[in-house]
Amino acid sequence: MSTPSLLILPGDGIGPEVMVEVRKVIDWFGAKRDLKFEVSEDLVGGAAYDAHGAPLHDETMAKAQEVDAVLLGAVGGPKYDDLDFSVKPERGLLRLRKDMDLYANLRPAQCFDALADFSSLKKDVVAGLDIMIVRELTSGVYFGEPRGIFEEGNERVGINTQRYTESEIERVARSAFELAMRRNRKVCSMEKANVMESGILWREVTTRVSSDYPNVELSHMYADNGAMQLVRAPKQFDVILTDNLFGDILSDCAAMLTGSLGMLPSASLGAPMANGRPKALYEPVHGSAPDITGQGKANPIACILSFAMALRYSFDAGEDAARLEGAVNAVLADGIRTADLLGEEGVSPVSTSEMGDAVITAL
Amino acid sequence: MSTPSLLILPGDGIGPEVMVEVRKVIDWFGAKRDLKFEVSEDLVGGAAYDAHGAPLHDETMAKAQEVDAVLLGAVGGPKYDDLDFSVKPERGLLRLRKDMDLYANLRPAQCFDALADFSSLKKDVVAGLDIMIVRELTSGVYFGEPRGIFEEGNERVGINTQRYTESEIERVARSAFELAMRRNRKVCSMEKANVMESGILWREVTTRVSSDYPNVELSHMYADNGAMQLVRAPKQFDVILTDNLFGDILSDCAAMLTGSLGMLPSASLGAPMANGRPKALYEPVHGSAPDITGQGKANPIACILSFAMALRYSFDAGEDAARLEGAVNAVLADGIRTADLLGEEGVSPVSTSEMGDAVITAL
Ligand SMILES: CC(C)[C@H](C(=O)O)[C@@H](O)C(=O)O
Ligand SMILES: CC(C)[C@H](C(=O)O)[C@@H](O)C(=O)O
Repeated sequence: MSTPSLLILPGDGIGPEVMVEVRKVIDWFGAKRDLKFEVSEDLVGGAAYDAHGAPLHDETMAKAQEVDAVLLGAVGGPKYDDLDFSVKPERGLLRLRKDMDLYANLRPAQCFDALADFSSLKKDVVAGLDIMIVRELTSGVYFGEPRGIFEEGNERVGINTQRYTESEIERVARSAFELAMRRNRKVCSMEKANVMESGILWREVTTRVSSDYPNVELSHMYADNGAMQLVRAPKQFDVILTDNLFGDILSDCAAMLTGSLGMLPSASLGAPMANGRPKALYEPVHGSAPDITGQGKANPIACILSFAMALRYSFDAGEDAARLEGAVNAVLADGIRTADLLGEEGVSPVSTSEMGDAVITAL
Repeated sequence: MSTPSLLILPGDGIGPEVMVEVRKVIDWFGAKRDLKFEVSEDLVGGAAYDAHGAPLHDETMAKAQEVDAVLLGAVGGPKYDDLDFSVKPERGLLRLRKDMDLYANLRPAQCFDALADFSSLKKDVVAGLDIMIVRELTSGVYFGEPRGIFEEGNERVGINTQRYTESEIERVARSAFELAMRRNRKVCSMEKANVMESGILWREVTTRVSSDYPNVELSHMYADNGAMQLVRAPKQFDVILTDNLFGDILSDCAAMLTGSLGMLPSASLGAPMANGRPKALYEPVHGSAPDITGQGKANPIACILSFAMALRYSFDAGEDAARLEGAVNAVLADGIRTADLLGEEGVSPVSTSEMGDAVITAL
């Protein structure tokens, strides 16, 4: 096989800083494990807008379609708050998701042993937490038409459309069941079937798909109860399957339970390409964090672990992924902390690049 | 003024049990404080379906329109899970909200001192918590058209519509600002203006309304970040203003933070009637809890505190409301607990009716 290709889109805010550390990790795997990548880099979000007047250049989009995987930092920042909706930094990310058809967004919410004290939840509620949220990413209210702000009588009305076809629900449900097979064989599907017809269809299709996975236990929960249960007893869940908008909120809620947002990666996967690899984009769950940009305070681990997910899901290198995750755990066990993970007495923070170096040393 | 009227709709599951205790409280205020109500009772939800084949009879709806306030227990249960969408118990509640035009849903998320240990969150994160969530209740994706499951090519598609007019946003925003004036003068408005045009309009209108309230500080937050911040540091909020669907999820998340779901009331308010009182429906946040129905285990406090909200918002009896809330606090301080509030060692639970009696004694 030819050298796998990786497109790096550092984006805005702390994106470029954390990506510097990821490149150290990529280089390490090339040098020490003979896992070489053809790496190219380009702009997305506000950075792309500044250069081209659009949050994603067509040429960048074309490149993203060709590579084996995309690794993204973060997009957005107050500088771009007043831009027109159509050119906001977020639109670049949303276009990548949509045009690459990355329908399954995998968001692990994992509580790292060394950091369990750091959660706002009681330690026994979150210690050992390991949930996988599978969020539908290319449909629903994020993309449904009609949408916009329209005149109606003598006032305006804002409209968005929640819209799911059976096949859109089915394919993401399959992703969730496949993942559950390699985990604890439980899928909890969340919607508002008591209020929304799209939720009724969601429930019906996931139930149908579940008959192909007799060893996986499927349950259904209303999304509002889901939010409650996540706060009350998150360890009851294994895989959570939900739509684009509920997934946005519930996955952020779950991420915060772990107390270590700066630690959480994500993968967005589409259909297999000709070479058998899925279309894929990897990105940390945290945002661009404009308040700490350029100060060497950012935690690069979420982005490093996003690369670990790439090793696992795009490059069939599960062992190397586990090695990288192990290195991160070792660093944490050593008490090495970036500023976002402080709280223990007597620990002073390391910088973004010191954290990257520590991971390399642990590798 | 003539005797104020109250329509009681106990509904399903534990609704009837907790309502028995509320009636004791209502009777107490009639006897001891000369606050008399003309009370009538009727069916809603599954109970109404069983009797009439519809989750809300037209006559009940007409009565609800005439009374000064409605007090509702809970609706729904597994027995009704397979009913057609149009006659599900929830439709009865949704019709009440819609036809009475109860656009402002007030959901206090309060952490009771005596129960702070009971939260899954660390005590210092939630002790003293006192948030008011104002959720828009009669519009958005709950009611927008088109909606339904439609044929499209050779498959089906589930559609719902998020829809907000300027005036719908404006009136609920005013409710939030008015409340903030009597609290800590902060409103945080939550939407997804980075992804949804309806959120852009929401942000624009709330900003415009805020100019009428120069003493209230308005901030905006994306709803996903809102969920995170609620988990991370809920005490940063005073009033949270949000739409119907986000409000459903975020208010349940906030409710669970307090650790005492069985304690939380809500008020749903509409425009003033001819007598100056707002159209109003009061109900506990908890559901019908079929798993404990009929066992004397239900906690009646949420429903009792819903009546306290009625005293405050419908009957201008703020002092009496405070007296009732004080009685509840006293009961809790005495260590009296229903089964849902257990956890402390050496405490055994009281029954639903014992809890009601304890509140009466404390009054
Ligand atoms: C940046 C934004 C458009 C995005 C979303 O809403 O999907 C983010 O919140 C996420 O969850 O990845
Ligand atoms: C019962 C259901 C229709 C309702 C809702 O979704 O609004 C409930 O969850 C609530 O929050 O009052």
